[in-house]
Amino acid sequence: MLSETNDPWLLTPGPLTTSLSIKQAMLHDWGSRDAAFIEMTARVRNRLVDLLGGGDDHVCVPLQGSGTFVVEAAIATMLPRDGKLLVLINGAYGQRMVKICDYLGRASVTLETPEDVPSDVAALDALLQRDASITHVAAVHCETTSGILNPISEIAACVKKHGRSLLIDSMSAFGALPLDAATVPFDAVVASSNKCIEGVPGIGFAVFRKSALERCQGNSHSLSLDLYDQWQGLEGNGQWRFTPPTHVLAAFDQALKEHEEEGGVEGRGGRYSANCRALIDGMKKMGFAPLLSDNLQAPIIVTFHMPADPAFDFEDFYRRVGEKGFLLYPGKLTVAPTFRIGCIGRLGVEQIHAALEAIQDVVKTMGVSELGPRR
Amino acid sequence: MLSETNDPWLLTPGPLTTSLSIKQAMLHDWGSRDAAFIEMTARVRNRLVDLLGGGDDHVCVPLQGSGTFVVEAAIATMLPRDGKLLVLINGAYGQRMVKICDYLGRASVTLETPEDVPSDVAALDALLQRDASITHVAAVHCETTSGILNPISEIAACVKKHGRSLLIDSMSAFGALPLDAATVPFDAVVASSNKCIEGVPGIGFAVFRKSALERCQGNSHSLSLDLYDQWQGLEGNGQWRFTPPTHVLAAFDQALKEHEEEGGVEGRGGRYSANCRALIDGMKKMGFAPLLSDNLQAPIIVTFHMPADPAFDFEDFYRRVGEKGFLLYPGKLTVAPTFRIGCIGRLGVEQIHAALEAIQDVVKTMGVSELGPRR
Repeated sequence: MLSETNDPWLLTPGPLTTSLSIKQAMLHDWGSRDAAFIEMTARVRNRLVDLLGGGDDHVCVPLQGSGTFVVEAAIATMLPRDGKLLVLINGAYGQRMVKICDYLGRASVTLETPEDVPSDVAALDALLQRDASITHVAAVHCETTSGILNPISEIAACVKKHGRSLLIDSMSAFGALPLDAATVPFDAVVASSNKCIEGVPGIGFAVFRKSALERCQGNSHSLSLDLYDQWQGLEGNGQWRFTPPTHVLAAFDQALKEHEEEGGVEGRGGRYSANCRALIDGMKKMGFAPLLSDNLQAPIIVTFHMPADPAFDFEDFYRRVGEKGFLLYPGKLTVAPTFRIGCIGRLGVEQIHAALEAIQDVVKTMGVSELGPRR
Repeated sequence: MLSETNDPWLLTPGPLTTSLSIKQAMLHDWGSRDAAFIEMTARVRNRLVDLLGGGDDHVCVPLQGSGTFVVEAAIATMLPRDGKLLVLINGAYGQRMVKICDYLGRASVTLETPEDVPSDVAALDALLQRDASITHVAAVHCETTSGILNPISEIAACVKKHGRSLLIDSMSAFGALPLDAATVPFDAVVASSNKCIEGVPGIGFAVFRKSALERCQGNSHSLSLDLYDQWQGLEGNGQWRFTPPTHVLAAFDQALKEHEEEGGVEGRGGRYSANCRALIDGMKKMGFAPLLSDNLQAPIIVTFHMPADPAFDFEDFYRRVGEKGFLLYPGKLTVAPTFRIGCIGRLGVEQIHAALEAIQDVVKTMGVSELGPRR
């Protein structure tokens, strides 16, 4: 079973299967300094602020590149050279932020929980109380490593209580899980074009509280990644400082339109939740065991324990399921032996059911009898 | 007169008008960690090395983002923290490299010539002789600010004679003007997907002499822009470290195929030269005066003096020519009052002639009588 463009369905954390109409938006060339493109840039920026319930006191700064580029750019732009970042970690994306700080030569401390345990708000509270040198806190909304949902409202309230600055990496949640500036106070939220908005990859963005961004001049270590300078450029003449991926922006613009047509965050999140439910139920029925309990699971990507049966060879499994038209994530990021199946992108329960059927067939062909984890 | 997708023709230094088949290559979704995409990445990387006549001793490292991202990445990756970069300047792109060094906190010196004068190789020779602390030299192959061609072979020979490391910014020349590793010794050449190869914007790349790149571990100030680490990632499993713009790479792959079908550098450069000749001849016939003499002019983009006649308002001119289906570059980068018309992208003398006709009509409608520069 293939997609409408005869491609395998992408059951990964991104790049994702996108709609044909989103891809067709790329069938035009745009002058990046022409009025039509300037207008498109403004429309996309405004819509992204709207999606967070931000008003005139918030501003969106898009950036060329992948999600990691905008995470690095946001850290470098927000943190003064003598600042100190506390990173809440329960997976690879939290760890990567520490690596970024090391590259930048900015001080960081960490507060880590196991990959199947949400960030600990009581410990955060105590640490912020204890260490006055921490100026900023970074949290991952949905940690794609396992698919775990972190308690972002509680984290935000705690950081605000202590008067520190909060950066939320909402890469894989933005547009599908609620996040509202009115109730979740933040200085910046970063995400990208090709997760729950279902655009194609090539653009990241940060939505800043304007008063926070105004203090960020001169912080960045990098011209290309300086979001303050990028903002000043956009405010000046509406243009990107350096050549933007014009076709990717056109697809993002169309994706935002289709996101709105689906009912915005509620509609999109609803479809993903149904996908996630169908996926977990089907996999459990076969005998696979999810890593996370339901109350910790974000409806984005699901991590399953690697089956104990030695007949289960993951590479072979991946290849065979791929041949049936479904690409899983080829590899694992968790410490525990696991594999992951995404449930986002332009697909619904019909595709999830077809994927489950393919998985069932492959497991049977491979002669795997025990799908539960090693005990 | 519009393009085959009913868009204005882009007579700019990029983004450019691309072929429909290149844009159609983006009508598919790819799993960025799947075998098919890994193969595509390898094919593109190898072809880019081939285009420079590099063999097993050269390697291509692609990077997400615009041309400036890969220029910054190459400087940061190549230059040790205690290195010193000499930048040859005759336009905005040379100046930008100095700005990058300032951001990075790396030492730089400059050797500047006016925007209509090629880099001075005798002065370079003397400076390298005099200043032993200069470790690297950066030169711009075609300085898009004016369209001037710099004497890249002579520069390379001089840098080699003095045993320094050379970085060539061949952004707007790569794929249309000859550049061969066998005769032009360099440590790195950087360019992007959306200039003379005629892909869409979103990817830059650097082709390194492998033995030079091998010495670059730990130099970069940035995780995202670390081309050594990007290279190690690609060598390890063939995958990009962070989500690549999959659709942009698919278009780039198709663009490289079409570049080869047109006869490679010779064929592409030949068409652009014919475009450039037709453009200059036609503009001169109307009374416009090019900034550069023919022997300094690269066949990429042509800079014309702003007409002296007060009836010539550039913004009005730009808008009116745009309404006839041709987008010029809206603004100037040179010190002298000028405007620019690009002659690259998927267009030929037929489109240049149509653009000239449109310009003639607009000039007539505006009631401009004197098209020569102020004297």
